[in-house]
Amino acid sequence: MTVQYIHKVASGTALMSFYLLKRWKGSVWKVVWRDLVVYLVVYYTLSLVYRFGLGVEGRRQFESLVLHCARYQSMLPVSFVLGFYVSLVVSRWWETFRSFPWPDNTAILLATHLPGQGIEVLERRAVLRYVVLCFTLTLVTISPVVKAEWPNLENMVAKGFLTKEELQLLNKHQAASGQHVAWVPMLWACRIVHRARREGRITSDLGQKSLVDEMLGLRSRCQRLLGFNNHNIPLVYAQVVTVAVYSFFVFSVIGGQFLDITQGYASHTIDLYVPLFGLLQLVFYLGWLKVAEALLNPFGDDDHDFDFVSLIDKHRRMVEMLGEAAANDLPALSPLP
Amino acid sequence: MTVQYIHKVASGTALMSFYLLKRWKGSVWKVVWRDLVVYLVVYYTLSLVYRFGLGVEGRRQFESLVLHCARYQSMLPVSFVLGFYVSLVVSRWWETFRSFPWPDNTAILLATHLPGQGIEVLERRAVLRYVVLCFTLTLVTISPVVKAEWPNLENMVAKGFLTKEELQLLNKHQAASGQHVAWVPMLWACRIVHRARREGRITSDLGQKSLVDEMLGLRSRCQRLLGFNNHNIPLVYAQVVTVAVYSFFVFSVIGGQFLDITQGYASHTIDLYVPLFGLLQLVFYLGWLKVAEALLNPFGDDDHDFDFVSLIDKHRRMVEMLGEAAANDLPALSPLP
Amino acid sequence: MTVQYIHKVASGTALMSFYLLKRWKGSVWKVVWRDLVVYLVVYYTLSLVYRFGLGVEGRRQFESLVLHCARYQSMLPVSFVLGFYVSLVVSRWWETFRSFPWPDNTAILLATHLPGQGIEVLERRAVLRYVVLCFTLTLVTISPVVKAEWPNLENMVAKGFLTKEELQLLNKHQAASGQHVAWVPMLWACRIVHRARREGRITSDLGQKSLVDEMLGLRSRCQRLLGFNNHNIPLVYAQVVTVAVYSFFVFSVIGGQFLDITQGYASHTIDLYVPLFGLLQLVFYLGWLKVAEALLNPFGDDDHDFDFVSLIDKHRRMVEMLGEAAANDLPALSPLP
Amino acid sequence: MTVQYIHKVASGTALMSFYLLKRWKGSVWKVVWRDLVVYLVVYYTLSLVYRFGLGVEGRRQFESLVLHCARYQSMLPVSFVLGFYVSLVVSRWWETFRSFPWPDNTAILLATHLPGQGIEVLERRAVLRYVVLCFTLTLVTISPVVKAEWPNLENMVAKGFLTKEELQLLNKHQAASGQHVAWVPMLWACRIVHRARREGRITSDLGQKSLVDEMLGLRSRCQRLLGFNNHNIPLVYAQVVTVAVYSFFVFSVIGGQFLDITQGYASHTIDLYVPLFGLLQLVFYLGWLKVAEALLNPFGDDDHDFDFVSLIDKHRRMVEMLGEAAANDLPALSPLP
Amino acid sequence: MTVQYIHKVASGTALMSFYLLKRWKGSVWKVVWRDLVVYLVVYYTLSLVYRFGLGVEGRRQFESLVLHCARYQSMLPVSFVLGFYVSLVVSRWWETFRSFPWPDNTAILLATHLPGQGIEVLERRAVLRYVVLCFTLTLVTISPVVKAEWPNLENMVAKGFLTKEELQLLNKHQAASGQHVAWVPMLWACRIVHRARREGRITSDLGQKSLVDEMLGLRSRCQRLLGFNNHNIPLVYAQVVTVAVYSFFVFSVIGGQFLDITQGYASHTIDLYVPLFGLLQLVFYLGWLKVAEALLNPFGDDDHDFDFVSLIDKHRRMVEMLGEAAANDLPALSPLP
Repeated sequence: MTVQYIHKVASGTALMSFYLLKRWKGSVWKVVWRDLVVYLVVYYTLSLVYRFGLGVEGRRQFESLVLHCARYQSMLPVSFVLGFYVSLVVSRWWETFRSFPWPDNTAILLATHLPGQGIEVLERRAVLRYVVLCFTLTLVTISPVVKAEWPNLENMVAKGFLTKEELQLLNKHQAASGQHVAWVPMLWACRIVHRARREGRITSDLGQKSLVDEMLGLRSRCQRLLGFNNHNIPLVYAQVVTVAVYSFFVFSVIGGQFLDITQGYASHTIDLYVPLFGLLQLVFYLGWLKVAEALLNPFGDDDHDFDFVSLIDKHRRMVEMLGEAAANDLPALSPLP
Repeated sequence: MTVQYIHKVASGTALMSFYLLKRWKGSVWKVVWRDLVVYLVVYYTLSLVYRFGLGVEGRRQFESLVLHCARYQSMLPVSFVLGFYVSLVVSRWWETFRSFPWPDNTAILLATHLPGQGIEVLERRAVLRYVVLCFTLTLVTISPVVKAEWPNLENMVAKGFLTKEELQLLNKHQAASGQHVAWVPMLWACRIVHRARREGRITSDLGQKSLVDEMLGLRSRCQRLLGFNNHNIPLVYAQVVTVAVYSFFVFSVIGGQFLDITQGYASHTIDLYVPLFGLLQLVFYLGWLKVAEALLNPFGDDDHDFDFVSLIDKHRRMVEMLGEAAANDLPALSPLP
Repeated sequence: MTVQYIHKVASGTALMSFYLLKRWKGSVWKVVWRDLVVYLVVYYTLSLVYRFGLGVEGRRQFESLVLHCARYQSMLPVSFVLGFYVSLVVSRWWETFRSFPWPDNTAILLATHLPGQGIEVLERRAVLRYVVLCFTLTLVTISPVVKAEWPNLENMVAKGFLTKEELQLLNKHQAASGQHVAWVPMLWACRIVHRARREGRITSDLGQKSLVDEMLGLRSRCQRLLGFNNHNIPLVYAQVVTVAVYSFFVFSVIGGQFLDITQGYASHTIDLYVPLFGLLQLVFYLGWLKVAEALLNPFGDDDHDFDFVSLIDKHRRMVEMLGEAAANDLPALSPLP
Repeated sequence: MTVQYIHKVASGTALMSFYLLKRWKGSVWKVVWRDLVVYLVVYYTLSLVYRFGLGVEGRRQFESLVLHCARYQSMLPVSFVLGFYVSLVVSRWWETFRSFPWPDNTAILLATHLPGQGIEVLERRAVLRYVVLCFTLTLVTISPVVKAEWPNLENMVAKGFLTKEELQLLNKHQAASGQHVAWVPMLWACRIVHRARREGRITSDLGQKSLVDEMLGLRSRCQRLLGFNNHNIPLVYAQVVTVAVYSFFVFSVIGGQFLDITQGYASHTIDLYVPLFGLLQLVFYLGWLKVAEALLNPFGDDDHDFDFVSLIDKHRRMVEMLGEAAANDLPALSPLP
Repeated sequence: MTVQYIHKVASGTALMSFYLLKRWKGSVWKVVWRDLVVYLVVYYTLSLVYRFGLGVEGRRQFESLVLHCARYQSMLPVSFVLGFYVSLVVSRWWETFRSFPWPDNTAILLATHLPGQGIEVLERRAVLRYVVLCFTLTLVTISPVVKAEWPNLENMVAKGFLTKEELQLLNKHQAASGQHVAWVPMLWACRIVHRARREGRITSDLGQKSLVDEMLGLRSRCQRLLGFNNHNIPLVYAQVVTVAVYSFFVFSVIGGQFLDITQGYASHTIDLYVPLFGLLQLVFYLGWLKVAEALLNPFGDDDHDFDFVSLIDKHRRMVEMLGEAAANDLPALSPLP
């Protein structure tokens, strides 16, 4: 589920920054604490070996290694590659969200252009169910969470989302074509609308066209979601970034060791015991990387992933309200300005 | 309210830069002065302790700490992460503004296609009221400022924005579906237009289609605003940036101390008493961060937030003018070129 | 007026770079020369004081200050913040240009769908005048240059751009609603088109719809221009960048001083008397900043601002040609391929 | 074929990073291993020559060269240029994908507006075949893989994708005009739809318009693909980046040599024998560059290229299902909500 | 003409990078070789003067100057400003290409909706000729290459692109309005279509609307091209970047001199005689800048400019094929799947 924190920061008061930091769910602390623990364990193991486990010669060699690593660590352009990579991932995540299909306009158009209370009721219900079904069948192939909710078509029949006849037709087409059948319900919806127009229940060609255009637009959006799923950011890019960040921390856990200040190494004039700066870098760079990892595939069940099961449920309630309940009443015209 | 300063810089004269700097409202000075005070208090406390409160040994250790912090401070890639983050936040803020629904075209279309002076007057009023109502009900769920203005539907009835019948219907639908009812008035508006077409007051199907398309477009924009509100920039990202900037200042308040110049530390050859450079960095980095914090949620009542209450009021006046007042008169055709 | 230089660089010859550099109008030299003079005056004042006005002790202290400033100057991330900021400003400037409304399509549509030579002539004239009027009234509220050209509605009557009846109506609506009346002429234009359709001078509903859609699209573009004017880049951002750049030059004018080379300071081994590098940085960073300042508000009369008065005049001539002159003649069909 | 890895990272668990790294297909390891081998061979050749093949004087000179190269290597802004370049290439790659034409909506529209079972069956088949043919003929001129599958029009006849009459017509037009004929099938499809409307099998002008608009939209998308192919990122840009990255490694293979630690060179205090850091940089920078090279032309048969042959096959099955199989059955209206 | 190299890199093999580098046309080598020669001449002149022309005192001063320049050279943020600038220029270049008008859809629509073989043939020819004429007249005002091909309207008559009557009308309107007349042929085309509809040769209002919408869309794209030409990237920006890059090379040609290694200057421990690194930087930064210069005005005749003369010729052939040749034949419906 997407983490909501914005309503708490409606007015950017002085304490807003601190409010942001103390959140846990979906927070940087939650995503980096495991790495933090590993870092500290390795750091202190090395530190103890250096301080108590090595002879004079070994300590001098260890010190050389530390200086070597520290020098190279600062040459890794981690912030740069992270900046570009995270920009890309965040913009894809947002573009994905912008591609979601919303059935609300279809429901309003149906209530407007097919307003009757006879067979029209069944038609409105069928069309809206098919629209939501198209979205659901799309998500089943993308999101493991939705797949878990509706593992197969039979399950949808059991849950009253599909009739047996529809099930048989979908299975038949899937078997015959070898393709997914998410578009078939949308085809049915278009044909129901066409029939309603031919038989005069929809009173204008333009009404039909508005409905069909809207529904085909929703189908295109479903297809776009499939495209986002099938063509993600190239694996090489993700790997390059991951290699860069984790190499940085291998160098950091060695190069960030405090050395014997009596040896007079430049930039080793103090021994603070706690690698504050290394931890800070860990939170910073790893947190940044985790932003990207969390958003790379927004179809799962991370803190930052989209909650599709709730969304489908919400759609079903919303189209029920707009297409049925509210289609039956219209307030009297009032002289209010 | 958005801060207006642009009209003062219409011609980019030499003094424009200075005009920009002396503004207070919505300015960098206003957003950073609290942090500036904290910084100075901590800085001078440390400075006084160092200068007068420590023995020789303590001073040497403090100096080591200062050098350590100064070294690490310069390794924090604050400007980088801020650059990418602020770009993201600013572009979202602008995209949000671009998503605002404007009812003006609907009013013009109504005055064009439903021009009569009988029941048409009531119909135009109702449709335009419903359009603005849809926008208002959307904002009530997003903006605490709008929520404060219209805390509930009953209050809207009291303020003459809603009839009792409408209130009952909205409450009924909300209770039955568990969904927000911002789209219901738009449905009513579409159905009033449909009825006017069926009963011949709107004289063409295309006129009806133009109106319905325009209104559904407005509804989609309202939905987009909800989307901006519900799916903000991941919390991790905001936290990473905040951690980076504030860590920078913790290191800065220590690492920026002037040290005893007689100790001969490189880059400590002068004692200016005032940490000019640290203050400058504070204004600079913190100001940059505050740009982002102010724009992160533009639905509040910051200096940079959108003033929705005025906007709704403006909409009501504008649609009143376009849909009513100006719908009654049309100047005679003149031979002006 | 926008500076045109592109036609001179149609083929990127070797000398193109030098052509670019020698331009004055709209050039970097024109925007930075004042700052350059100030910089040089301050620089040589300090230099003379250092070389001739200070005792030995004072010179040593001044040298410490110079080294201190030079060190800090190089730590200011000016290029970074400028890169992001200028990107933002340039993309807004271009987006603004892309939002301009062009009445040419309306004129062609009118000549196509309302081709008669009777009352149709007056109708075409009125519609096109109203379209340009809507654009003009929008710009009057944005651009001081346009405001100076047409300070009020009465002035427009005097210049034959408005009839007295129109003036009275606009004044009445403005007074009654408290809103700007730029949309009212567009409403009149839509209603004239509607009447021409009802009375059969426009022969198809689709012709009317094309015209109304086009005109409402123009109105939306006018509104977008208002939006660009009312919601500019946050003041904080502009201030942060200005503070950064000018601080940089305060540090530069001190830190760039040539010091006594006999004192043996690292990186002070030569005395060139002229701060070539400092001047170069000034041209570079300040020029970059001025790009942004010039484009921040493109509605004024800078070298880089849009020339709206000419544009409106051009629009009037163009719609006259397309809607009137060319509407009367159509060449015979020829067998040319 | 595009590499799919996203379904494995649906929930961003702690081990996700490691999962990403161990992939081979489409991975950074696969794209850089050849360069890695070359690097190591050159590195150790130089190393052995230095350690065992040179006299004292030669070793001192070699050491000077190593220090010289190491210094210059760190001044190459490789990460910067790579960041901007890869951003550009990735966004073009994605824009290319977004331009793909999908025939699914056309199939649904045909099944809706041309639903008969007589000659309509042949018409639907012909229209859908022409739509896919237009896409195929476009790709033949772009993608060597598609070209290999269908080397010429005769071959398409043999594979039952084209009739002999169609072949003759296409050949005639191609010969006469000297232009590619990918648009001609789309023209045929539009004319079949027009005839079906004139002869009453399509019952509304709007139905015809929907179909023609959809098909012309697909043709524009095909044209956009041609545009992506014909106007790629300027060669200069690609060369500049390649020169930068490979120069970096020439400097690296020399500058990264471990030197005799007894000579006391700063930053040469340890001899690790294995150039870990150089290898890491190689993986990092070269991997980043290879992201771009792989995506620069997505029409080939790289791991990251689009699999057009499968896509065309998928289109043929999908339109067969939507336009034929599913066009014959429509489930009964059910009272399901 | 745009340089095509992509078909050679369809599969990103290991040698692809080297293929890219050895190209000459449109390559980095071609754009920088002149500057490279100048650089080398200046470099070796200075080098010879230093090595053989100066006394001991002069050599010491020259060495100071070299060290001074080298230090400052590394402080110029050239890569940064180039990164942002080239991004901007490349994205504008691509946006320009995306704005090109393509007449192909108009030809298909004409063949579909105006299919007759009588006067319809002349009408189709006239409309398509006018559409290409509009594009050509637009480019004449933008591109010197197109201007050279068709220097004036009379020339177009001579080349059989325009009738004498059309010439007279265009000249008349141009003289009367003082505006360019590129839109007038589009107006004629719209009116021919309107007449064909009124006289029944086009059988539906929607067919007319499709044609007019398509043609007005093309006109808007022509206007966008004019906009790209008239409002380019601010001159200041281009100058700032040019100043930065060339200053860099002035510093480089001095600062990159090899100094007497016996003087013991840090980072001057080797004398390679050839300024490899300086040349590399030259290729790199100057190549990057030339990317931008080549794309800044894509309307000329550079290697990277658009080849408009061929494009117009191609358009004429294509619309001839689609609007005439292929409009006369339609293959029989076949039972192919």
